[in-house]
Parts: sequence; structure tokens; C-alpha cells
Amino acid sequence: MTVKITETILRDAHQSLLATRMRTRNMLPIIDKLDEVGYYSLEMWGGATFDTCIRYLNEDPWERLRELKSRMENTPAQMLLRGQNLVGYRHYSDDVVEKFVTKAHENGIDIFRIFDAVNDIRNMEKAISVAKNVGAHVQGTISYTISPVHTVEKYVEFANELAELDCDSICIKDMAGLLAPHEAYELITSLKKEVGLPVALHCHCTSGMASMSYLAACKAGVDILDTALSPLAGGTSQPPTESIVAALQRTKYDTDLDLGLFTEVTKYFKDLKEEFRGILDPISEQVDANVLLYQIPGGMLSNLVSQLKEQNALDKYEAVLEEMPKVREELGYPPLVTPTSQIVGTQAVLNVLMDERYKVVPNEVKDYVRGFYGRSPAPISSEMIAKIIGDEVPITCRPADLLKPEYESLKKEAEEKGLVKKEEDVLTYILYPAIAPKFLLGEAEEEELVPVRAATGVAPVNVA
Amino acid sequence: MTVKITETILRDAHQSLLATRMRTRNMLPIIDKLDEVGYYSLEMWGGATFDTCIRYLNEDPWERLRELKSRMENTPAQMLLRGQNLVGYRHYSDDVVEKFVTKAHENGIDIFRIFDAVNDIRNMEKAISVAKNVGAHVQGTISYTISPVHTVEKYVEFANELAELDCDSICIKDMAGLLAPHEAYELITSLKKEVGLPVALHCHCTSGMASMSYLAACKAGVDILDTALSPLAGGTSQPPTESIVAALQRTKYDTDLDLGLFTEVTKYFKDLKEEFRGILDPISEQVDANVLLYQIPGGMLSNLVSQLKEQNALDKYEAVLEEMPKVREELGYPPLVTPTSQIVGTQAVLNVLMDERYKVVPNEVKDYVRGFYGRSPAPISSEMIAKIIGDEVPITCRPADLLKPEYESLKKEAEEKGLVKKEEDVLTYILYPAIAPKFLLGEAEEEELVPVRAATGVAPVNVA
Ligand SMILES: [Co+2]
Ligand SMILES: [Co+2]
Repeated sequence: MTVKITETILRDAHQSLLATRMRTRNMLPIIDKLDEVGYYSLEMWGGATFDTCIRYLNEDPWERLRELKSRMENTPAQMLLRGQNLVGYRHYSDDVVEKFVTKAHENGIDIFRIFDAVNDIRNMEKAISVAKNVGAHVQGTISYTISPVHTVEKYVEFANELAELDCDSICIKDMAGLLAPHEAYELITSLKKEVGLPVALHCHCTSGMASMSYLAACKAGVDILDTALSPLAGGTSQPPTESIVAALQRTKYDTDLDLGLFTEVTKYFKDLKEEFRGILDPISEQVDANVLLYQIPGGMLSNLVSQLKEQNALDKYEAVLEEMPKVREELGYPPLVTPTSQIVGTQAVLNVLMDERYKVVPNEVKDYVRGFYGRSPAPISSEMIAKIIGDEVPITCRPADLLKPEYESLKKEAEEKGLVKKEEDVLTYILYPAIAPKFLLGEAEEEELVPVRAATGVAPVNVA
Repeated sequence: MTVKITETILRDAHQSLLATRMRTRNMLPIIDKLDEVGYYSLEMWGGATFDTCIRYLNEDPWERLRELKSRMENTPAQMLLRGQNLVGYRHYSDDVVEKFVTKAHENGIDIFRIFDAVNDIRNMEKAISVAKNVGAHVQGTISYTISPVHTVEKYVEFANELAELDCDSICIKDMAGLLAPHEAYELITSLKKEVGLPVALHCHCTSGMASMSYLAACKAGVDILDTALSPLAGGTSQPPTESIVAALQRTKYDTDLDLGLFTEVTKYFKDLKEEFRGILDPISEQVDANVLLYQIPGGMLSNLVSQLKEQNALDKYEAVLEEMPKVREELGYPPLVTPTSQIVGTQAVLNVLMDERYKVVPNEVKDYVRGFYGRSPAPISSEMIAKIIGDEVPITCRPADLLKPEYESLKKEAEEKGLVKKEEDVLTYILYPAIAPKFLLGEAEEEELVPVRAATGVAPVNVA
């Protein structure tokens, strides 16, 4: 019953605490040592890393993957994939999904953790089937949230659908840190019993409950826990690896990892953190009790603060906090994770700032109501639908079924622009058509290490 | 089986994170609200607060106690008392102990948490009996540590001795955050079964295990958990109150505290923390994996860093870390808490810096070996005794039996110096004869809020 550890320091930990700004050159000197620890896997790609690489770091994400992978002899390489959204912010056509997943695997990804913001399996099935076909391990993922329609039974039902698609394991992804210990225990007990696949638990510490939920998860038979080395653990990141390993020592859940092996890697990231101190918002390192009251992920809270600051409306913070759960309910209780976190968050801000609810509705919100993001967990009322998209009729089909194949035409486009040196460049272009050209033409520059507030105005904070 | 909460924000939380620098005027505006939460008790006096008040804040600790207490209508006032050391750094004679405890109770203390650094009950019995006689609740305290001689059986034996002295409850004081969840479970299960008194658990988050140990403690039947409001929780402080309350909601351990009641108090301390940001060492807010390897409390680590910096010997940090457990073993495995943390820490530094072990031995270490601090948990070898105090013979009696009554003579001394306006001033003088006169004469000045490093050079960091 040994519990396995997935280390997130190269992906989620710095995405959560350092605005995803860790560079490949910060990772390479320590990758050998990380590889020696004996982790179940190293999460080191996907999520917001792809975007950040080309937008801010002038780095080729594909090269990062290859360089890291070439030095990982013992540890499987893991990525976070947003289902049909891949590592972008919209649905891509199936041929793009096919190409991306294949290339990610070719370049080194062993384990694909695949999720969808609204837990619509139709947004995940293509990515899952491609990953299975190339022979990768697929972690079918539940985006965890709390609402009247999110019951243990529903989660188990969803996990069983994932199992039917041949997922190798199930991940519970608690991006907001909402999962209380006894809820973790109940959910995992049911999943283990009713689904039978290995279960991984991924929590953020935002509410201060994560490590307790990990302990409860062990008692329920969890197989894998996601942790981050202590210098980049806690707050909006994962529980500290060393603490979890120590807490389970000499129990039947012992991870069998040697605490002594962490000395060097811990020291490395402790020093590295000091280099990044300027972009580390101390608030994100701390438990945020608002999460417990409003059930909002930490990333959304810091995003909200920057949005309101830009509008000189920081005094509306509490009002927006109270508006968010209302908007979320009206939109059918989507889990708050990229991109639904932005959808709900932006609408809540507009509702408060405009002094009239839904007076202004961004296109993303309309598309969400149109069904383009998939099926909302609870139905949206006809009044809300009418208010937001008038007499348009929402789609009921799988959203990607409406997308024509786009790979070949966009490939041609990219080639004509002189952007393509390798096939992966086509994918980079398709995912980020606005910023990729500059990067692919070698005209991008690495940003200097600046205070995070200056940077977060530009792109949304990713929540995952 | 409702679990009760002791809130430490007014004592241990700022002692751990803000060098005990919170002022009474920072506490008064929020005391009514804290009083309304429904805590089991509010720890708000003792430990290092007394020292800091007169040394740095030009505040009368007795007045703080009275002012806070006068606004606490619902919540018992709790203090941390170092047994025969009271709130100072040496043993005081029994008549001083009698006077101090009586006056502390008269001025408002309802619950005395009484501990001794080496768990020598002879150093606690006087304070316990006085506190019992005045009608206070006494929490007999186990200073928790890990060593070959610190077994569950030994702790239970010690707790039974405390129970025989009529203690009302037992506190497990894990100042270094060493208590792993399964150890908490075993220890508390045994205490509940073999001693039968209510059990309080006090952990620091330094190693990142505390909240997990709290959860395990609940399953073992713990009665009271010590927590700190989230802005000053985590790191070298306690687990966050709001997170523990939330984690236990809707379980049989539910604290029955309303999460909504925290909004205002949390916000208050969040804002207050920003005022103190300059003295907050970010390192102390974080999990320190070294604690797991070296079993050293966080306060000692920051103290060590300042000591070495002063000596321009920061490069010896790792060497001293490795020396500490050796010194601790040679001194009979004392728990590391004020004052033994200073005793072991200073000797370890000297052993490394002098290039010869025990070449220089401070008086405190000699006195410790002489038995003046009480019985060491394990016997000290005769070689070590000879090395440190030559052919002197250590005492075997209760250390305070060697102290003549000193209250009346020191009272006269204080009066002659014109220091006494009220009887409590005599105690202030007896406890801090070097710094009290200036304070009592009204010549002390409140320090400005300066970086903590400038301040920690002056007095040892307290560990409790
Ligand atoms: Co995450
Ligand atoms: Co303490």
C-alpha cells in the first residue's frame, strides 16, 4: 500500500507561485537529482508552461520537453492537458488534437493527465484515445468542485466513463483546495470501490486543508499524491513533498522515499526561489480563508485583484467575491478552472462594475452559454439563456464536432509565413497564432524578472 | 466529541512569526471580535511576551493582561508559563513563583499552561500547586521531542505524574513540529486511555506535518487544538484556525465555530501583518525540511543564522546543524525549547567555531550539567560531566530547593531604587533585573518597527 508521489515543482508549483516563470536553464542543473529521488512521475510540461514559454521566456516548449526528458532515466515525464483545449484556451479540431498528443508523446511525455473544465467527457475523448493509441499512460481527470449537483455518485459515474475510455488511472484535481479531508476520504473510497483504477490526488493548499486531505486520502487507499518540494509548496501550490514523505514514514502508506535524498534538491530550489523573490506575491504563499467561504481558487483571487486595480475599483473586491458564486450558479455550477474560472470571474467583475447584472456579456460567456465549452454541470435556466444569447439555441452536440479539420490549412499558413522549421512549430502556431509568429521568427525576447503585478495584467492567471 | 480551539494569535503566532512584537494597541481593537468567536481559550500572555513588552515595546505586560481581560467576556484567558522559570530564563525561588502565579491569576489568567524544558516535574510542581490553589485551570504540559528515551510509555508516565498533581488537562507541546500524524495518534490514544484527562495538542508547522497531526489527533480523541488565524499561521507558527475549523466541519469532530465569524478577525490580522511585513522573515513562514532531518525547532534555526552572521561564519551553518544532534545526545536528549534550545544551540556553535568540541563551555551549559535545570531525560555520561564541570558533583535534589526565598529582599531592593508603584512591579524587577529598572522608571522607549535581523541579535529567539 505504498503511496507514490508525483512531483510538481517543474510545472504546477511555479505556475502557482511564480507565474510559471521558471526557465529551462533553471531546471536542467537539478533534473538529474530529481530523477534520482524515486518519484512516481515528474510533472514538467503542459498547463500554462507552453503559453509562458513563448509569451514571456522566448523558449521553445518542445525543446524544454526534449532537454528534460533526455536527462530523466528513471522517472516518467508527466504533462497536464486541457482536453480538447490542449494547452491553449479554445477547442481545437480533432486533427490538431491528434497531432499535438502524438508529438507530445514523441518528444517525451509518458503520462497524460487529461481534464476538462466542465467535466464533459466529449471534450476529453479524442485526447484520451490518441494518447492511448500512442501507448501513453492516461490519467483521466475529475475537475473537483463543490455544488448541489457535484455529488460523489456523479463523480463516480464520470470516473466510470473515463474508465470505459481505457484511462489507466483517475486523478482528482482540486485546483481550488476545496476538498475537505472527510470528503476526500468518501470520494476516494467510492472511486476505489466502484471504478477500481489507481487514484491520484492533486490538491492546492489555498484553503489550508490539502495536507489533511492527503492523509485522509491515504486511509481511503489513494495511490498517488501530488506534492511540490518545500521551497515552492504551500499557499496556492501543492503540499510540501518532504512533509508528506515524513508524515507517512513508518506507516503502511510509507512512500519509501529517502528524506536524505531531498537535501540537495530542496536547497537548490530554496536558492532558486530567492532569485524569483521579486515575482513571488507573498499573498499566494498563504492560506486564504476566503477560499473557504467563497470556494474560489487562489489564482482567481490574485487575478481579480489585478483586474480591479487596473480599473481603479479595488473597493469592489468584496462585492465581486459575493457576485462570483451567484454567476457560477447561474451558469450551471462549472468547476472554476481555466477557462471557466476566467469566464465566471470576468462576468462577475462586469456585473459589479456595470451596476447592472449581465448588461455587458463577453463573447466567452456567450460561447459558454451556447454550449461551445461543453455541457454545463447543471442546466442553465431558459431566462439566463435568453438574457445572455437572446433567441439563439445552444448546441447539444460535442463541441468539437462543429470544428472542421484545421491542421493542414493552418500548417500551410504557418509555412507561408516562414514560421516552420519542424513540425512542432506548426502546433505552436496553431495554439498561439497571435504570439507564436514573433517567437518562431526569433524576434521574441526573454522578459526580465519583473514584479508579477506588472506581468499579470497581460495574460489571465491560469488555474489548474 | 466536538473539538475545541485555543487561538494563539495574541501570543505564540506573533512570537513565532513577528518576534513577539505585536503591541497591546494592535490587540485591543479586535479583542471583542475574538471574544465572540467561541474559542475554548485565547492564549494571550506568557512565553516571550513579558520579556518583549519591557525590553522592546515599553509596555507593561501586566497592563496588557488587564486591558485584554477586561474585554473578554466569553473566552478564558490563557498563558504559557515556564514552570519554575515563570516567564524568565532562570529558576526563581518558590516564594517568587507563588507571588507571580497568584498575581497572574488576579490580573486575569484563567488557564495556566505549565511546562518544563526537560520535563522535570519538580520544576513544575510549585507553579502547578499555586495555580490550583488560586482556582485556575492547569494544563500540565509535555514538552514533546524525539529521542531513544522519549517513548509513549515515558510520556504517559509523566502525564500521570501531572494528573497526580491535580492538573485539569494535559498539553502536548510540539514546539519543533516533530510530531508525525501516526505518532500523534498513538500518543494521544494512550494518554486518553491511561490518564483520562482532556488532551490539548500544540504543534508548530515548521516541518509541514502539524495539520495532518491535528487530523490524526482528532481520531485519537484529542479535546483541544491550538491554532492561529490564517494571516499569522503556518511556518514556525500554528496551523490556520479557519482551515482546521473548515476541515472538521460536518464531521463528528466539528468545532461548531461559524466560519463566517472569522471574516472580520481574519481581515484585521491580514492588514496588521502588512504593518509588520518589515520584521517578518519570509523563511519563517515556510516549511523547513531541515527540521525533518535534524529535528531542530524553527526558532533555533533563525537564531542560528543570526548568530553565525554576527560571527561572519554563515558557511558553518551545515556543520552546526550536524553538530546540534550530537550535543543534544551528549547532554541527555533535552527537548529543544527555551532555555535548553539556547543551551544546546550555543554549545553546538562553539564546538564548530572553536575547532575543538567543548573547548569553550558557557556557564548555562555548565549549570545544565550541574543539574540546575533539572534532571536530563537520559543520564549524561561521566566523561561528559568531567569534560564540562571537572570534578564537581551534579546535584540530585529539586533545583529550586537550593534557592532561598528572595521575594522580600528583592522587593526591598526594588523599592529602594524607586521602581515600585504596584506589587506587580516587584515581579517585573525580579524577573528582569537588568532591563526592568529603565522600564519601571519610565525611561524606556518603544522600538520602531525595524527589520527583525537588527533586533534578534539582542535577545535569544524564544522557542515555545
Ligand atoms: Co494544479
Ligand atoms: Co508554541
